[in-house]
Amino acid sequence: MFNGLLKDLAQNLKQFPGVGEKTAQRLAMFLISQDKDRSRNLAQSILDAVDKYNNCTQCNMLAETDPCSFCSDTERDTKRICVVENTADVFLIQNTHEFRGIYFVLGHLLSPLDGIGPTEINFEKLADRIKQIKPEEIILALNPSPEGETTINYIASQLQPMNIAITRLSTGLPFGGDIEYTSSMTLSHAFKRRMPI
Amino acid sequence: MFNGLLKDLAQNLKQFPGVGEKTAQRLAMFLISQDKDRSRNLAQSILDAVDKYNNCTQCNMLAETDPCSFCSDTERDTKRICVVENTADVFLIQNTHEFRGIYFVLGHLLSPLDGIGPTEINFEKLADRIKQIKPEEIILALNPSPEGETTINYIASQLQPMNIAITRLSTGLPFGGDIEYTSSMTLSHAFKRRMPI
Repeated sequence: MFNGLLKDLAQNLKQFPGVGEKTAQRLAMFLISQDKDRSRNLAQSILDAVDKYNNCTQCNMLAETDPCSFCSDTERDTKRICVVENTADVFLIQNTHEFRGIYFVLGHLLSPLDGIGPTEINFEKLADRIKQIKPEEIILALNPSPEGETTINYIASQLQPMNIAITRLSTGLPFGGDIEYTSSMTLSHAFKRRMPI
Repeated sequence: MFNGLLKDLAQNLKQFPGVGEKTAQRLAMFLISQDKDRSRNLAQSILDAVDKYNNCTQCNMLAETDPCSFCSDTERDTKRICVVENTADVFLIQNTHEFRGIYFVLGHLLSPLDGIGPTEINFEKLADRIKQIKPEEIILALNPSPEGETTINYIASQLQPMNIAITRLSTGLPFGGDIEYTSSMTLSHAFKRRMPI
């Protein structure tokens, strides 16, 4: 529909997850229609963030500083390492205020069919970090999906000889959920792992 | 949830229509996680488009050149001016391949309660353009909404002394629509304006 720079802009906006042709065109039109300084600020803040955010050499999370604010915070409990799939998960867990330990970001979940093996999930780096820090507990905070389960099983089996407590997040009914709309798999797990009151 | 440059980026992304706090955070995380060059290209294409797109001095549409490609195209039929609300509407009408005339972009629809009067919809400029070009037909391709109807009535009444054909888009059932799910207003119009077969 568009041409020239507007077409280029819509093409570039289509890279966003969940943004198709039509939405990209609408966003492109919005960006050239609104106050020019607001659009320029957006572009500049993309450039600033992209330049400054890099993977922390200790925990792999995307951060403005290296080591990141968690790895360099001496107040945090290095006896516990929480292993997550990506940087966003770190913020989500921080938001719960349940964890004062340090993190390790895998970057991926194991998926042999997609060519994602132990190297891609930075397993060696995790193992080195564990040997160096000697934590008491490794919390595998990964999705209860097929890839997540594979990754949990792989990491747990590899770390077994180290004699550290290895835990994972509980599965069960989500808060505010409804048994009627819960998948049979979730309900079955929640039943099997029922808790004393 | 975020802080620093990532928080700034999410704030700036929230300006997009339909993007709330959560989506903005997800998009910000996406931009710093993916290949840096792709994100830089997006930022650069925002800057390029914002710099180059300005309102055409003849028809008001946002365009890379002034006059725009429509106003400077001598092949187009200057006997017909299609009046639209905004630049996106020009592309949507071009897409139908039904119109070979020239355009005029109002920028707004009349809405006295929001302080949008004849000056804000560039009515003087439209009137000047009509006096200069002397078209045979003015097509008011505006939304059949309260603001659209007000604008159509205002422009039609003001242009009446000029003795030009003034038309508007037909209203009726949308193609592929279903009578059962059509608003009573639309159905009533479609009934009143029924067409011979």
